[in-house]
Amino acid sequence: MTKDGGKKDNKAAQYGVTPQSVDFNDWYNEVVKKADLADNSPVAGAMVVRPYGSALWENVVRWLDDRFKATGHESLIFPTLIPMNFIMKEADHVEGFAPELFTVNKIGTEELSEPYVMRPTSETIIGHMWSGWLNSYRDLPFLHYQWGSVFRAELRTKAFLRTSEFYWHEGHTAHADENEARAEVRTILDLYHEFCRDVLALPVVRGEKTASERFAGAVSTYSIEGMMRDGKALQSGTSHYLGQNFSKAFDVKFQTREQKEEFAHTTSWAISSRIIGAIIMTHGDDAGLIMPPRIAPIQVVVIPVGRKDNFDEMVAEGEKLAAELRAQGLRVKVDRRDGVTNGFKYNDWELKGVPVRIELGPRDLEQGVVVVKNRHGDEKETLPRAEAVAGMTARLDAAHDWLLGRATEFMLENTVTVDTYEEFKAAIEAGKWVRAFHCGDPESERAIKEDTKATARNVPLDDAEFFAEAEEGVCVHTGRPAAYGKRVIFGRQY
Amino acid sequence: MTKDGGKKDNKAAQYGVTPQSVDFNDWYNEVVKKADLADNSPVAGAMVVRPYGSALWENVVRWLDDRFKATGHESLIFPTLIPMNFIMKEADHVEGFAPELFTVNKIGTEELSEPYVMRPTSETIIGHMWSGWLNSYRDLPFLHYQWGSVFRAELRTKAFLRTSEFYWHEGHTAHADENEARAEVRTILDLYHEFCRDVLALPVVRGEKTASERFAGAVSTYSIEGMMRDGKALQSGTSHYLGQNFSKAFDVKFQTREQKEEFAHTTSWAISSRIIGAIIMTHGDDAGLIMPPRIAPIQVVVIPVGRKDNFDEMVAEGEKLAAELRAQGLRVKVDRRDGVTNGFKYNDWELKGVPVRIELGPRDLEQGVVVVKNRHGDEKETLPRAEAVAGMTARLDAAHDWLLGRATEFMLENTVTVDTYEEFKAAIEAGKWVRAFHCGDPESERAIKEDTKATARNVPLDDAEFFAEAEEGVCVHTGRPAAYGKRVIFGRQY
Repeated sequence: MTKDGGKKDNKAAQYGVTPQSVDFNDWYNEVVKKADLADNSPVAGAMVVRPYGSALWENVVRWLDDRFKATGHESLIFPTLIPMNFIMKEADHVEGFAPELFTVNKIGTEELSEPYVMRPTSETIIGHMWSGWLNSYRDLPFLHYQWGSVFRAELRTKAFLRTSEFYWHEGHTAHADENEARAEVRTILDLYHEFCRDVLALPVVRGEKTASERFAGAVSTYSIEGMMRDGKALQSGTSHYLGQNFSKAFDVKFQTREQKEEFAHTTSWAISSRIIGAIIMTHGDDAGLIMPPRIAPIQVVVIPVGRKDNFDEMVAEGEKLAAELRAQGLRVKVDRRDGVTNGFKYNDWELKGVPVRIELGPRDLEQGVVVVKNRHGDEKETLPRAEAVAGMTARLDAAHDWLLGRATEFMLENTVTVDTYEEFKAAIEAGKWVRAFHCGDPESERAIKEDTKATARNVPLDDAEFFAEAEEGVCVHTGRPAAYGKRVIFGRQY
Repeated sequence: MTKDGGKKDNKAAQYGVTPQSVDFNDWYNEVVKKADLADNSPVAGAMVVRPYGSALWENVVRWLDDRFKATGHESLIFPTLIPMNFIMKEADHVEGFAPELFTVNKIGTEELSEPYVMRPTSETIIGHMWSGWLNSYRDLPFLHYQWGSVFRAELRTKAFLRTSEFYWHEGHTAHADENEARAEVRTILDLYHEFCRDVLALPVVRGEKTASERFAGAVSTYSIEGMMRDGKALQSGTSHYLGQNFSKAFDVKFQTREQKEEFAHTTSWAISSRIIGAIIMTHGDDAGLIMPPRIAPIQVVVIPVGRKDNFDEMVAEGEKLAAELRAQGLRVKVDRRDGVTNGFKYNDWELKGVPVRIELGPRDLEQGVVVVKNRHGDEKETLPRAEAVAGMTARLDAAHDWLLGRATEFMLENTVTVDTYEEFKAAIEAGKWVRAFHCGDPESERAIKEDTKATARNVPLDDAEFFAEAEEGVCVHTGRPAAYGKRVIFGRQY
């Protein structure tokens, strides 16, 4: 439970969580469990997502799905299983995924001579199907995606961040030429960036991965990287240009306008349930979660404050207030629980990170006011009821801006520009991100990782909001001329 | 392809399908493939759902999901895998599912001493988790559901109807007493019935399954049954009262208001991707699919009819018309394809079952009219453009009513009331449903099935719209007194 040194603070003992500064990992695990986001499961490496976590994930899915459709993408549904030999067809791909595969070797009573694997990702089977669907350049582009589970063995489970089964969309597109495919890769990266910034209040750095951090089978991998409150990086979404690697492995070819035969240029991209880990670890504080308002399953919680003799009446008044807020399209819950204290309720909804709480008592009702408290602030405000209702959307927008601003400031404050390897190691050890020149040699990256546990997160794009300055210099590790024409971001990662 | 005896009808050869009367099975498979609903996959028994099929399924999901939430249910996400020994804990359950299980016995390079199965259904693992979440009667009811895939070995695959991996929601609820659990079972059955009738235009019979047709582990199983156009029944949804069978197997108990310990009463219920098979086989005709308008991925298709010199202009006019229709909340597509004939387009959208087609040519434009054709009728109507737009929702409603009416009539016409076993066999052989008295003996049901391939579909509920009359009589097969107080529906089934 709490590690508050045995203080007689009942609230902390019952509802509290370990402070972030004491143990960030304990804080995370306790918040996930106590806020009812997820639970451990009897399946090694897999979690159970509870209703509050599922509602959050559904909001993620809905926003992204709407945008995929609005940008011309079509959903489809591929099997969960993939013939084992498919995975073997693309050399880098098999090397990347073989150690993590779940193997199905029996169906009913029949032992399979050709086993299946539970998909770790679906490039292979989608390539196989595309080869049957694609004839002419007129059929292109294919702009496909699917929502579902994927399976990759994990030894040390951590809810949302590292689970053997996780949830995602995987986008897969095929194009007639490289330019169009690369434009798609960028369109999606920008869509992810917009989602993080404008919906989740997460500042992220758009950049390209170095060669050694690429997706298994990709020509170029782009990512968005966010900084958690312990200073570690979390890769929050990826978008890959796969060149013709998979189309050649799976014979995805077409007749061009000029009647020639050509292999398609393909892409793939994903955001997974890890993004929930990013939300938790970017915004949360010692009282628990702080939900970004635009994705929050519950945006406003109304707490009727009554005594036994008038509790039902106050609940009815709370429902009226909730109805007014819902009429503005807001997601509102009235806490109708009887038999628990108001203090319990306040703590519970703070732990769950609901952005705004409204308390409504009999005296407030008489005076036509309500008491409003933002999750991210300390002050309670007493406001005329009509004003509180009319101002709620603006209040939630302001909460969004506040969260985004705080996270941005935190990321900038905890990113250090260094020019010597000593500074590099010291900054990483202090839990910072480092901006440094690097020669681009994978061997050097490996040595740095062994030394410091830090990896190259990405090379910011020219038009990334952060850390994009063009610069020339020498490698912080090898002293050789720097690659990329700018500094690389290094950090420890989830 | 088509079986039209080599006639030089290019349309039929290219776009046509085998008539239902020639071979209903071929008709089905060809429609599924040519209308781009689904394709075969390289995974034994599994299909690939293509974008048009996926869009249809998404509409099914959205309607049901909204209703589950509106009736107080919460989604969550359980692992796809279940420890093999969980399946073994409920005696009937293991007997029912063991022959169909997909077994995972290797993760990464590790051979598992305790294998997992890919879920055939999730009662067991959900029961296990509930036992950890449930303490007091105050925690109940649990009203849970999840969307996902399930896995049951199938030898003879048929898209949507019989696939080793299929898609569904599975509802799971736990209650403090039997009455409340049984009320839930009924609430869901009625919700399914409403969905079929009011959204999919499918008439279905609500009833209780006989003992031998119950879900493996249930105390009572209820179903909705629809009649396909070949006279076979399709079980389109089920709702089970599980009593305390699973709660005892998984220790799902709670402290009652009276401080006693009691096992919960649980339910489970599902509609799966089979429902798409029901839509296809209830409404389709020799030209292809007919989509029920309220679920159709595309409700109205606009076909700009132009020549080379004015095609782009007509497409622009088509988009204007589409925008007016979309402003009413309708799902509209403009067929912008160049280089294919109008005849091809008409056939293509008929095959795909789009409820209404609008043709827009230059002369129509001049005269302020459009040509409108319902998918389910033969006549083209020329209407003032404004009238066609303003009347579209009513037109779609009328198409819904027409489809529901036709299907209801078909079901009633092809259901025969019999009192002798000779009549019974003749009617089943003729592809009908039979209403007959039955003694309730599972042995007799087994003998009837062996004789006729027909099974007891269900015993209609007292307030079912169809076949609900209370009656007494003697068993059509054994001559013993009839059970149930009414006739049972028998038929061959999918």
